[in-house]
Amino acid sequence: NSIDLNSDMGESFGRWTLGDDKALLDVVTSANIACGFHAGDPAGILRTASQAAANHVCIGAHVAYRDLSGFGRRFLDEQPEDLKADIIYQIAALAGIAASVGTSVSYVKPHGALYNRIAVDETQARAVVDAIAAVDSSLGLLTLPGSVVGRIAVDAGLHVFSEAFADRAYMPDGRLVPRSQPGAVIHDVDEVADRIATLVLTGTIEAVDGTMIRIDADSICVHGDSPSAVDMARAVRSRLESDGITVASFTSSGQPCVS
Amino acid sequence: NSIDLNSDMGESFGRWTLGDDKALLDVVTSANIACGFHAGDPAGILRTASQAAANHVCIGAHVAYRDLSGFGRRFLDEQPEDLKADIIYQIAALAGIAASVGTSVSYVKPHGALYNRIAVDETQARAVVDAIAAVDSSLGLLTLPGSVVGRIAVDAGLHVFSEAFADRAYMPDGRLVPRSQPGAVIHDVDEVADRIATLVLTGTIEAVDGTMIRIDADSICVHGDSPSAVDMARAVRSRLESDGITVASFTSSGQPCVS
Amino acid sequence: NSIDLNSDMGESFGRWTLGDDKALLDVVTSANIACGFHAGDPAGILRTASQAAANHVCIGAHVAYRDLSGFGRRFLDEQPEDLKADIIYQIAALAGIAASVGTSVSYVKPHGALYNRIAVDETQARAVVDAIAAVDSSLGLLTLPGSVVGRIAVDAGLHVFSEAFADRAYMPDGRLVPRSQPGAVIHDVDEVADRIATLVLTGTIEAVDGTMIRIDADSICVHGDSPSAVDMARAVRSRLESDGITVASFTSSGQPCVS
Amino acid sequence: NSIDLNSDMGESFGRWTLGDDKALLDVVTSANIACGFHAGDPAGILRTASQAAANHVCIGAHVAYRDLSGFGRRFLDEQPEDLKADIIYQIAALAGIAASVGTSVSYVKPHGALYNRIAVDETQARAVVDAIAAVDSSLGLLTLPGSVVGRIAVDAGLHVFSEAFADRAYMPDGRLVPRSQPGAVIHDVDEVADRIATLVLTGTIEAVDGTMIRIDADSICVHGDSPSAVDMARAVRSRLESDGITVASFTSSGQPCVS
Repeated sequence: NSIDLNSDMGESFGRWTLGDDKALLDVVTSANIACGFHAGDPAGILRTASQAAANHVCIGAHVAYRDLSGFGRRFLDEQPEDLKADIIYQIAALAGIAASVGTSVSYVKPHGALYNRIAVDETQARAVVDAIAAVDSSLGLLTLPGSVVGRIAVDAGLHVFSEAFADRAYMPDGRLVPRSQPGAVIHDVDEVADRIATLVLTGTIEAVDGTMIRIDADSICVHGDSPSAVDMARAVRSRLESDGITVASFTSSGQPCVS
Repeated sequence: NSIDLNSDMGESFGRWTLGDDKALLDVVTSANIACGFHAGDPAGILRTASQAAANHVCIGAHVAYRDLSGFGRRFLDEQPEDLKADIIYQIAALAGIAASVGTSVSYVKPHGALYNRIAVDETQARAVVDAIAAVDSSLGLLTLPGSVVGRIAVDAGLHVFSEAFADRAYMPDGRLVPRSQPGAVIHDVDEVADRIATLVLTGTIEAVDGTMIRIDADSICVHGDSPSAVDMARAVRSRLESDGITVASFTSSGQPCVS
Repeated sequence: NSIDLNSDMGESFGRWTLGDDKALLDVVTSANIACGFHAGDPAGILRTASQAAANHVCIGAHVAYRDLSGFGRRFLDEQPEDLKADIIYQIAALAGIAASVGTSVSYVKPHGALYNRIAVDETQARAVVDAIAAVDSSLGLLTLPGSVVGRIAVDAGLHVFSEAFADRAYMPDGRLVPRSQPGAVIHDVDEVADRIATLVLTGTIEAVDGTMIRIDADSICVHGDSPSAVDMARAVRSRLESDGITVASFTSSGQPCVS
Repeated sequence: NSIDLNSDMGESFGRWTLGDDKALLDVVTSANIACGFHAGDPAGILRTASQAAANHVCIGAHVAYRDLSGFGRRFLDEQPEDLKADIIYQIAALAGIAASVGTSVSYVKPHGALYNRIAVDETQARAVVDAIAAVDSSLGLLTLPGSVVGRIAVDAGLHVFSEAFADRAYMPDGRLVPRSQPGAVIHDVDEVADRIATLVLTGTIEAVDGTMIRIDADSICVHGDSPSAVDMARAVRSRLESDGITVASFTSSGQPCVS
């Protein structure tokens, strides 16, 4: 009766701040920290990694296409050998910063357009898996249930973890209802917490047509890019804990991530 | 009777190629590899690191200001906490790429305007030293003899190595004759080799006024950014070897750098 | 009895938003729009330029060093021929975007570290003046009273305008009290409005020691990078207007900037 | 009996040089100058524009995706409103630099992955056409014969020009033989010149199967990114002239481009 909460962080860049990492690090158990390619400058990454270490929150490398102006949200048709090297570089840079503040990277979560692409594109997926394996094959990979990259990573011997989106409505086939449709995002704290509790206890979530579908989820992705998102995350965690559900990292067998 | 030869590499970027790393790696014993801030994209860095590993050449992190369009040759008035994080990020990124091809980073050589600045500026020098110590205090630092950064690094317990420029004329006070003056650069292979041989055997080099000055040098910097520079480096190494001087890395006690 | 209010805008970049340009464009008469080197992506610049056009607000090119990660706030030791070309490029890019939405650039205001540097550095100042003259010598230059760049621009035949900072305390010699000192920033709306009114009517402002000093100001710089800054700007404008002071652009002889 | 020769230029970036623009500007009549997004820094762009002006060579804006590390050769899935603004920005920046050296931009040639994409993708094609029209609807567009962007540009009232590749083999359906296949590139000067001469005189080119196919070409694209490419271009021009074919810009009705 345990679940992980993960969120994106370290996404400020120079003068531009984004998200309230400090507040989020009191809520989540896994921090997907930007590595400098879609967001994150070294000094900001270091601050967030340091706060994560202080809070015993596990760190994931939030690797991305090299696209600051597009925030990594635009598909880039990169050759696999370039992509592989880009991913190695990003994981390594974050790992070194994490080590400098006494913690470490325990998993990789691809970001944005890369996340979506390698859910279906075998060539780029393989490049990402090769990169992770080349850095450290004990690193976990956090991805969508049923993704192409998940399957390739399993075959390569990586530890693969799946995530669900508790504040998003699901279609009966397990895909998310697109944001453009009404009801795609659930704003009620109790409803979101109930969905997670049910997911933890039964491995199922209610789809928009009322049917219960199986979702394999080691972690729940929560958003922190607005004050209300942080409030939501905080309230959800509080509800889960009062329901007797343990909130703990997926990468550390229920232990806090420590130095 | 041993000396190290170091050279800058990995300075291509995407479509733009610079230097003949493959040829240089047959000549030098230490490779200062760009880390992506003044030059170097991950795929190119990986190729150069891989060739260095194959040739048992030691790798240094050629860290720089974040300035691709200025190639790191322009002073940037960066705050020390930002600079420190930038240096950690660069060393770490290169170290991860090196590890992925079975080798490692053994020293740090700041590049361009940063190299010159921290020879005299205590604040930025301290930031660079702090960064190196935060990543791995067994990393060497390659710098100018008598530099401020060298002194601070020694105080911090780092291994500090000095370099000379065999193809450059020296003033009696030990500084280089500025490139703008006639005779600043020595183009004759035998003269350059003779100067290095004398430096190795006696610890002195002849200044422009004919006096012999003491230069503390663990390594000689050779250039490789033109075909003629590579030819020069090759010829110098050949002459040194036929004179009975061993060309070997300063970071590995005379052993080749191995995985 | 007329004064211009200018403010920095267009400083968002991709996913990162900064400032409330829409609100500010109801308050100011001159918009210093980022040109992409310290901030501003083309689509965001276009939106801000378009809103400025709709509000008949004059547009200035907020040119800067090429330093997104430092937001143009760090001195960069750039060669004058490179700096000149960088400035031409930035003015031209903004001018083209402005033209595409039916307005134009009427002045140039250097940003951040460049603004401060060319107040004292003749070489870089001359490069900026040369750039402006090369694009269009009818463009105004907005700068500090008494700056080196102002003097060089006047000699080159450019129209030079000076600005004051109404929410900042002045020293008796006319320089700003550094932000690090207590009382450097004035937060009271009425006090700020009173200072501007006095400045407009008498050409003087009260220094921290109580003496009245002469300040040559064609424009007042107001900040808009926080909601409270926008509120302050709005309140100041309202007070000025109820005092019978006209708020109007310095570049258009009291006319609104029109297509 | 006249043809235009166009080539890519201004593709150096900071320390990295690419192509011999000076030599090429003695050969071609149209210069596609990089605008800073895939290549080209302002100082280098200014030098190339200045040499083009001195040689009365017409200037085209070689607009691209924002991707320095990929040299604009990787498809980027950009939203049309962002792409439109990016293209306006680039054309405008180059136009301002050109004007500062007494010349102007007379056409637009999209580069690399953007060139290929808008030959088939209606949404991005329309964004590029909208951008050109927003800057100056008298600008020409240089593209592939039969491209989607060409059709949309014609409908929008732009002047559209087509180019052929004289050193590339054609398939009977008018498409180029992929570079991966043997015989894709023609290296013989006389053969290339003969093909151009035939194209000018008859509007046809011989495909790989020996059939003559119609190719609508206002310009021939020549490459200049290697010394041998420049030699080839020079030899081809010389042969054309001795055959009585006039080499002249497509944008200026046979006149040299002048200030």
